[in-house]
Amino acid sequence: MTDNLQWPTNDRTEAPLQVAMLLYPGLTLLDLVGPQAALSMHSKIHLVWKTRGAVTADTGIRIEPSATFDDCPQQLDILFVPGGFGTAAVMQDAEALAFLRDRGATAKYVTSVCSGSLILAAAGLLQGYKATSHWSALDMLAALGVEVVKARVVTDRNRVSGGGVTAGIDFGLTLLAKLRGEHAAKLSQLALEYDPAPPFDAGSPESAGPEITAEALAFVAAAIREASAVIAPQAVAV
Amino acid sequence: MTDNLQWPTNDRTEAPLQVAMLLYPGLTLLDLVGPQAALSMHSKIHLVWKTRGAVTADTGIRIEPSATFDDCPQQLDILFVPGGFGTAAVMQDAEALAFLRDRGATAKYVTSVCSGSLILAAAGLLQGYKATSHWSALDMLAALGVEVVKARVVTDRNRVSGGGVTAGIDFGLTLLAKLRGEHAAKLSQLALEYDPAPPFDAGSPESAGPEITAEALAFVAAAIREASAVIAPQAVAV
Repeated sequence: MTDNLQWPTNDRTEAPLQVAMLLYPGLTLLDLVGPQAALSMHSKIHLVWKTRGAVTADTGIRIEPSATFDDCPQQLDILFVPGGFGTAAVMQDAEALAFLRDRGATAKYVTSVCSGSLILAAAGLLQGYKATSHWSALDMLAALGVEVVKARVVTDRNRVSGGGVTAGIDFGLTLLAKLRGEHAAKLSQLALEYDPAPPFDAGSPESAGPEITAEALAFVAAAIREASAVIAPQAVAV
Repeated sequence: MTDNLQWPTNDRTEAPLQVAMLLYPGLTLLDLVGPQAALSMHSKIHLVWKTRGAVTADTGIRIEPSATFDDCPQQLDILFVPGGFGTAAVMQDAEALAFLRDRGATAKYVTSVCSGSLILAAAGLLQGYKATSHWSALDMLAALGVEVVKARVVTDRNRVSGGGVTAGIDFGLTLLAKLRGEHAAKLSQLALEYDPAPPFDAGSPESAGPEITAEALAFVAAAIREASAVIAPQAVAV
């Protein structure tokens, strides 16, 4: 990633964490930017895709990769996959899955937020592990042979997964604490002023109630159909 | 902004909200992506800067504007300014301030997250209003003649400001509720699974304690010095 003049220089004794975050068309940007912000004071973050051309996120925002599958560092502290409406396509993308298997074999932590766990599972990296996902994707994750846990952040050995979208902030701070200690995580939390005060109590299907949950499911129905179509054959193949 | 195939089509009777979000070198990406995610189901979001060339955020991530100052829609529902380590430069950028004054004069809501409120104040758009900012920037906001309130989200007539970085999610949902109602905001909250569970209690100077607060202030010291240098003369000029 391009070094940036605005970013304060940290006088740290430890080398920065090498973090590779997968970009792909249709990713949900907040899935990635939450963890990125939590980890950024301690990390060299590589945004990785097939080419360096800008990638379009699911709401249309275009963001530039800083590395390709070929030039991404081999040895990673964190391999990370975000979720998004483009999940199903990546689950069938041989080149992306090969990249994840390769770096995932040696990464210190193999991680995801939201439906990113479906992609890790499609790469065969979550079978035999406990993991989580966006609340609307938990059934699909189970169909891929993953031991599903409904929680904000789930850790099983070196696999760490977060729930839907905003869970990426809790996920990022949890992961930073594992790698750099609680003090570092608290410092990041204060820098991000992460003292949340949701204006409503509707962040889970239970609190939002059946009517709003049905509407939210309708909103993601096409994405669920696409991913489910990929999972049926894959669940056998893995 | 490019329309995107992955994003579900909403069958809505109301026209999408016209939202202009300022990009600038050194912005904090999460300041922008939180509100963007909260508003996205109901909005046409324009990322605005001088040219269409990619802008580098404070941690080095490069993101493409979708509109320039000239072709950004004239009548906006929401004018939004994020914070970041590049704040001081924008506070002195005549072209950016002229754009904010122009669209701010007719926008339904004039808004910010984090140190974005310093930029709005530098444009003369917050004097005589209550507003907030990142905890480390509240003194500077007061020096610009703004009535500072320490809160997660502050609304005063059509000015709505959020606190530091992650406050943008609370801000975005609050603003969406004003414009599209509570039901819409709850639906967004569920889609984002915004049911926060911070792993530590360190999101404010009070909860983080004096040692971590001093470290966080050291991290942003250069940015505070730069912005303070802009404010001294400006406080007189406004």
